Amino acid sequence: MRFDVQVEITPREGISDPEGQTIERALPILGFGGVSRVRTGKLITFEIDADDVVAARTIVDDMCERFLSNPVIEDAFARISDVAAVG
Amino acid sequence: MRFDVQVEITPREGISDPEGQTIERALPILGFGGVSRVRTGKLITFEIDADDVVAARTIVDDMCERFLSNPVIEDAFARISDVAAVG
Repeated sequence: MRFDVQVEITPREGISDPEGQTIERALPILGFGGVSRVRTGKLITFEIDADDVVAARTIVDDMCERFLSNPVIEDAFARISDVAAVG
Repeated sequence: MRFDVQVEITPREGISDPEGQTIERALPILGFGGVSRVRTGKLITFEIDADDVVAARTIVDDMCERFLSNPVIEDAFARISDVAAVG
């Protein structure tokens, strides 16, 4: 089976996020007020072939931990979807 | 009202994504087979104060177009959520 995977990688709470801070400082100057708690992260989407969703989850979690994110400073959240046409 | 906003910024179809290509090439070498169509993007989350969800949507769309993304080469997708404790 083929699954759609969307991985979100964000800096852990307490880890500095200079890009987010820069955006937050710049927005009021550009006329966008009322924005707070800006955080940036990375998005990685792909397709994966696996026997079932449990197998896909095992592979994706391993990939996130070992390769796609740095678990010391980043949180990874993976959404695995079984997408198929109906009918 | 305060809304949670999550903006996903991805390279448009047909625009080269060197980071995604590098990940796709590296994964089999690291023992992760069966992965295809790797695309990377940026994730920006923040909170925004607005009168209602329609006002929030107007501001966020304008922000995406003028500041957060480059519409020539990137697609932006914004999810605006009204998050509140119940009861």
